[in-house]
Amino acid sequence: MSRDADWTRFRQWSRTLTDLAGASSLAGWDRETGMPPAGGEGRARMLGTLAAMHHREVVRDDIGAVLARLSEDPGGDEARAAMVRLAVRDRERALRVPESLVRALSEASSRCVMAWIEARPADDVGSWCDALAPLVDLTRERAQALAGDGGEPYDSLLDEFEPGATAAQLEPLFAELREGLAPILEAAAGHGRPLPAARWDRDAQMGIAHLIGDLVGFDRESGAIAQSAHPFTCSPHVGDVRFTTRTREDDPIGNVTAVMHEAGHALYDQGMPAEHAGTPVHAAPSLGAHESQSRFWENHIGRTRAFWSLMTPHMQAAFPDAMADLDDDALYHAATFVEPSFIRVEADEVTYNLHVILRFELELALIRGDLAVTDLPDAWNEKMRKLLGIVPGTHTDGVMQDIHWPEGMFGYFPTYTIGSIYAAQLAEAAEQELGPLEDLTREGEFDGVLAFLRERVHRHGATLSAQELISGATGLPQRPDELLSHLRRAYTA
Amino acid sequence: MSRDADWTRFRQWSRTLTDLAGASSLAGWDRETGMPPAGGEGRARMLGTLAAMHHREVVRDDIGAVLARLSEDPGGDEARAAMVRLAVRDRERALRVPESLVRALSEASSRCVMAWIEARPADDVGSWCDALAPLVDLTRERAQALAGDGGEPYDSLLDEFEPGATAAQLEPLFAELREGLAPILEAAAGHGRPLPAARWDRDAQMGIAHLIGDLVGFDRESGAIAQSAHPFTCSPHVGDVRFTTRTREDDPIGNVTAVMHEAGHALYDQGMPAEHAGTPVHAAPSLGAHESQSRFWENHIGRTRAFWSLMTPHMQAAFPDAMADLDDDALYHAATFVEPSFIRVEADEVTYNLHVILRFELELALIRGDLAVTDLPDAWNEKMRKLLGIVPGTHTDGVMQDIHWPEGMFGYFPTYTIGSIYAAQLAEAAEQELGPLEDLTREGEFDGVLAFLRERVHRHGATLSAQELISGATGLPQRPDELLSHLRRAYTA
Repeated sequence: MSRDADWTRFRQWSRTLTDLAGASSLAGWDRETGMPPAGGEGRARMLGTLAAMHHREVVRDDIGAVLARLSEDPGGDEARAAMVRLAVRDRERALRVPESLVRALSEASSRCVMAWIEARPADDVGSWCDALAPLVDLTRERAQALAGDGGEPYDSLLDEFEPGATAAQLEPLFAELREGLAPILEAAAGHGRPLPAARWDRDAQMGIAHLIGDLVGFDRESGAIAQSAHPFTCSPHVGDVRFTTRTREDDPIGNVTAVMHEAGHALYDQGMPAEHAGTPVHAAPSLGAHESQSRFWENHIGRTRAFWSLMTPHMQAAFPDAMADLDDDALYHAATFVEPSFIRVEADEVTYNLHVILRFELELALIRGDLAVTDLPDAWNEKMRKLLGIVPGTHTDGVMQDIHWPEGMFGYFPTYTIGSIYAAQLAEAAEQELGPLEDLTREGEFDGVLAFLRERVHRHGATLSAQELISGATGLPQRPDELLSHLRRAYTA
Repeated sequence: MSRDADWTRFRQWSRTLTDLAGASSLAGWDRETGMPPAGGEGRARMLGTLAAMHHREVVRDDIGAVLARLSEDPGGDEARAAMVRLAVRDRERALRVPESLVRALSEASSRCVMAWIEARPADDVGSWCDALAPLVDLTRERAQALAGDGGEPYDSLLDEFEPGATAAQLEPLFAELREGLAPILEAAAGHGRPLPAARWDRDAQMGIAHLIGDLVGFDRESGAIAQSAHPFTCSPHVGDVRFTTRTREDDPIGNVTAVMHEAGHALYDQGMPAEHAGTPVHAAPSLGAHESQSRFWENHIGRTRAFWSLMTPHMQAAFPDAMADLDDDALYHAATFVEPSFIRVEADEVTYNLHVILRFELELALIRGDLAVTDLPDAWNEKMRKLLGIVPGTHTDGVMQDIHWPEGMFGYFPTYTIGSIYAAQLAEAAEQELGPLEDLTREGEFDGVLAFLRERVHRHGATLSAQELISGATGLPQRPDELLSHLRRAYTA
């Protein structure tokens, strides 16, 4: 075949994969936002079928030769070369894991999620461990299959979520962060304070969600905002980028930080290079890169005094009763209240990364075979004591709190902290370009901020690796310094 | 391969097709209910990919031999035999149309829908005809390919929507109906009267929609109700059956009749034989059979005086102002107002089938080559005059009103009237079994009605043909008599 024919074939194949993934993504969105209760089993099966079709399409024989020829000489620009490189990488990963192992993993994780659901009400950590152990064994087998001979098996898991990252690089990075966080946490504990009890109308909170979306530049013509139990962003295809938030009647802050976080993800997806839609570069290069955007908006804009000054009149208009005796200071303090706590998804900005480091250290030990699943609950509590100075009273508030390990997601948690590190570096670079973010935030002038992120990050899609992307955007090496100095400034002044 | 292995393979294949169709259906639902405006192009592409994957899976080589062996000896019960028979039929249809023709048709219909959208504001029937003509030519080519040598090409189009129906059978059936309708229309014109102008809160209308759903037995645990521009029902998989309604602030009746109509479809889908989920018999045997359920609830329950007596207190509670001077009689008269009008989807129960007959006669002539597209607008107006005694002032209110021909759907319209005929026959059979429907309706006692439909219709799925199903359920041959006597009773008393 000629290179043009190869290229056409490649684009078709790539578009099919994109559309199948988009259909899955949409079915997942609907599951969380619109599906009736009895639809769970049918939806799981449908998603299984779509995943199987996707896998079958990825590994289909006839594309192998096309990719081989295009790898040698993709023609065209850097973007083309990146598309082919990413496609080859994904296909090789898919080919390396035998189908029997894929199926065994899928079954083990289904069982483990079931066990997780059943074990939590009774705090039955034994049953949970019994279901997790075979899943960890199979995950280690998968990691070995992906890594081939030599190499750190954990890296091959990490590679799925954060291509290019390695344990060898993350261990010192996270150790340095952990050390830097200890004195900050000591000084910051007690920063801020929760709001007094009040009723915050949930419809009015959705009004605030849309108002924030408009403020930061989220394009409603190609987007939507809904509610779900756990906030997430979903981008089934160009022209359709949605996110959810969570509203609680006893708290107005969680909605706002969730909206800032998910809007960060959504703005990124709306800013992907449209000319590369339907190819592997119309995406973030890693979850850490994606998280850099959500953390940027959530923490570097959304947890500032300036942001809450901007929000206060809107909050007063939306919640006249609850806001009657509250000012911007009260909101700001509630959004920056620091207190060591058990649950990661509810953690404040200072302690959050300690929750991630804990999981990283434990899962690395599990995959290396240095820690047995039976010893995991005690190891968890011990690390909580060391990192956060508290020990959960139940395993449900401890090792059993997240769904991600039972889902088989190992190598995933670190991307949160990589994202926070990147976000802090981007915030510094943005300030050098635009002046103090606080000043822009106070005025609600986010056009320049978004343009900066579009130019430095979004428009590149996955043509660069995450590290290339962020070091190109910031001029900085991957390091925790900017995150630490941000937290020091924000919480220990 | 052993029969068991063939059977396993068949079930997998069938499940994949079901899930792909379910994913398309869900993406279509979302397009009408949640998709942001800019998502249209991406969604069309995604749906195109899913349809292509479905087609590729239907015609895949390796399933041919499996189906051939199972056709000879399916083993098991009648349901198995029906599954194999339906699968073979669908696969043979798919194989008969060359891919180049499929693509040409898809492009021609896309162009024609675009032309339809553009032509309507200017009432530019010439452009519309220009775009429709090649689509009709390609459709005739497709009909020929499907029909093979001999046979009526139109039948092969009809077969997609109403398997087993033929022009030879529909022509006398519809002619008889048309003759029977003429005196009824003459006597019924002026029956009922519209409501006086008022404002009907749209949220309250959605409350009524849910109330009706609960009343007729729609299971909200496995279903949902939303709003869209055109009401429809969507059933992506077991445990998830949704429908939409349309609310207008100046009219409370359209919502109620739409809910009764779509709930009829949805109850059918919720009553499909669960043990056959993921196979071709977990479906209605035809669109006419499906429409029999929607028309049953809409017309034989929902347009009765008893139904509006039942609804009146709920309407008074939902719309205290608008209902202040209205009683059940006013609502009943509004729901049964008869007046020849131009637009099919707004037509009353008496004239509706004349709109369908008009389309059937015209599309049959088009496919047979007896009518050129350039003569279609005049032929439309002439038939309107003959059948309904009125001629539209614009082609937008005439030949250009529906999207279905521009979509390439020929052989589809007759299913509406087949459904109305079946619904009337089912209503007579239900009365024989349960006593007068009006009595049950007045009390809101729909359990027995639903049980009757579940037993006689729903549980059979597509194990029987539509005609076998309805004649089995009613003991009646396909004929217009019951529909005509129902209309006579309801509108000419």
